[in-house]
Amino acid sequence: MTYYLVFDIGGTSTRCALVTQRGECLALASSADPGNPLAGGTDRMVAAVAKAALTALEVGRVAADGIGGFLMAVAGGTEAALEAAHARLRGLGITGRRLDNPGGDGLAAFAAGTWRPTGYALVAGTGAVGMRVENGTPAAVSDGLGWLLGDGGSGFWIGRQAVRAAIGDLRGECRPTALTRLVLGRLDELTGRKLSLAPRPQAAGGLLAAVYEMPPANLGRFAPLVFELPDDQTAQSILAQAGRALADTLRTLVVESAPPVLVLAGGVLANHPELGAEAQGVLDEMAGEVEVSVARDGLVGAAVLALRAAGTQVGPAEFRRVQTSLARLRGPTATPSPSSGQASSRPRRAEKSAPAESEES
Amino acid sequence: MTYYLVFDIGGTSTRCALVTQRGECLALASSADPGNPLAGGTDRMVAAVAKAALTALEVGRVAADGIGGFLMAVAGGTEAALEAAHARLRGLGITGRRLDNPGGDGLAAFAAGTWRPTGYALVAGTGAVGMRVENGTPAAVSDGLGWLLGDGGSGFWIGRQAVRAAIGDLRGECRPTALTRLVLGRLDELTGRKLSLAPRPQAAGGLLAAVYEMPPANLGRFAPLVFELPDDQTAQSILAQAGRALADTLRTLVVESAPPVLVLAGGVLANHPELGAEAQGVLDEMAGEVEVSVARDGLVGAAVLALRAAGTQVGPAEFRRVQTSLARLRGPTATPSPSSGQASSRPRRAEKSAPAESEES
Repeated sequence: MTYYLVFDIGGTSTRCALVTQRGECLALASSADPGNPLAGGTDRMVAAVAKAALTALEVGRVAADGIGGFLMAVAGGTEAALEAAHARLRGLGITGRRLDNPGGDGLAAFAAGTWRPTGYALVAGTGAVGMRVENGTPAAVSDGLGWLLGDGGSGFWIGRQAVRAAIGDLRGECRPTALTRLVLGRLDELTGRKLSLAPRPQAAGGLLAAVYEMPPANLGRFAPLVFELPDDQTAQSILAQAGRALADTLRTLVVESAPPVLVLAGGVLANHPELGAEAQGVLDEMAGEVEVSVARDGLVGAAVLALRAAGTQVGPAEFRRVQTSLARLRGPTATPSPSSGQASSRPRRAEKSAPAESEES
Repeated sequence: MTYYLVFDIGGTSTRCALVTQRGECLALASSADPGNPLAGGTDRMVAAVAKAALTALEVGRVAADGIGGFLMAVAGGTEAALEAAHARLRGLGITGRRLDNPGGDGLAAFAAGTWRPTGYALVAGTGAVGMRVENGTPAAVSDGLGWLLGDGGSGFWIGRQAVRAAIGDLRGECRPTALTRLVLGRLDELTGRKLSLAPRPQAAGGLLAAVYEMPPANLGRFAPLVFELPDDQTAQSILAQAGRALADTLRTLVVESAPPVLVLAGGVLANHPELGAEAQGVLDEMAGEVEVSVARDGLVGAAVLALRAAGTQVGPAEFRRVQTSLARLRGPTATPSPSSGQASSRPRRAEKSAPAESEES
């Protein structure tokens, strides 16, 4: 039996699965270490990858020299960072060849939502990126520029808008919003800084100063608050703008020749697929009735890409096997589990942190 | 004779003038130390202020205990940062009372452009802020949220758009633009990283990675490139968007009761007042024919505010005296100098760096 190690490396967690050549996932390791080299630097990414790999091998009881290959799906990874991570795995005595992922986390997200080889992925998690995939390889990419330059409609982007709205409210520039109180509460959780709502101009100044003292990526932690207020006009306006930004990201990718297959992925879209409705409308208008799926776990895509890179055909049956075996490892709170008769040998799980699918992931 | 020390503390320079109670500026000290506490931290601001103050005293040959008061105009300054700077001045034996600036750099910008007590300031330099001023005090503020949260239409914002456009061009997502070559050239100047235009996807990835390795504030250094390309559609589109963002910032401030007096200020608007045309149109439409002036030196405003805080009436004559005496200290490249007959005693100047009015200041 040949085994593969596959990685889903995001802004707030690093996860690794041990998968067989048939697509059966045998072990899952997950930690809250940010692996995204743009967020935490290459050294932290390399350390998180090594830790996740060793844990998956230990949990799956597979020797380091029994691995046939490894594949990484990483948001914003440079070739240098990827090569450093692969070098560390080799340094740990993990055998096998590097299986190239030609499309980063965008391609993995697409492959996590459908076995089809051609269509579109729209990903909004900590960051946001769109991709047109043709025959299993990326044909065009849109946005994915990271928090400083782009990521319109991402968790970072939504969180930043929430903070802006709170400052605008406190200054009396914008309409009052229930976000303000929630934003100050989250700031307290993140930084221990308690700001009183009154006097309001001082609260605005204090919030502004506190945000600049945090790591910028923390702005994404304010995003979930916006989804808590279905009756708040400001919160709903932020979500509408986010949906529009995501639709813009998809729009530049659409061509007539590709079938209207759309995968929505990333923590924000997986938890709130309604945010992709406007993007779906764009595709519907330009290319006809859309087949939409929601990809809740980028590791499924990483496994699918690894199998394909290693020469295994992945059709609906293999896709479903990857999906259900991983869902079983994730546990009862995740996507619907398969009937127990399909259980494979030795499914094991080593979750070391918050749920794998948090709103911020 | 009573003397005052007044400071204009921006994202890329810290400047100090020694001014008499009549409004005559006797000495100017300028350094390239960023004094903006959001950009460089409180410690750097305090050090830059102390250095500028000592230089101004030395050049003006006034003893530390001869100062009646000091006033600071600072972009994004918290009360804590301001108090730290004032404490350092007292620690250096500089006497005099703290003269409060009730409106930060926005109010100083307004007072740098007109002696009138009521109207609007629109500032775009490294950052961007709008302010409605009534009877010499700020009545409403818009934007000024810094590079991470806002500053629409600022130098930072324009520079970021330039980099985005270059990446989009290199990826083949956006139309080709002459900005791309200029952006790669500026990147080389800033970081020593030479990126070849081909292969283009690698250049896009290299540019993206390099931007995340720079201090974010460096994005503002790409802004001047956009103004170099009057025939480039992408560059002109960025400037049009910047003008629109600045108009939006002004729009939320306009009330019928205030006269349509508009001061355009900050390095970007002072060098390119045409970027304020759309904002001027907003005011014109809402409040009637606009009296526009361009404030090229925030120190004029800091001096005006100091004189007023110390009890001196500042009308057209006093305003002109501050303006012309400072212009003389800045030297022949600055705003039109007064006739030589108006020369005061001991005008001296200690410029230690780049011109005080750079595009990025």
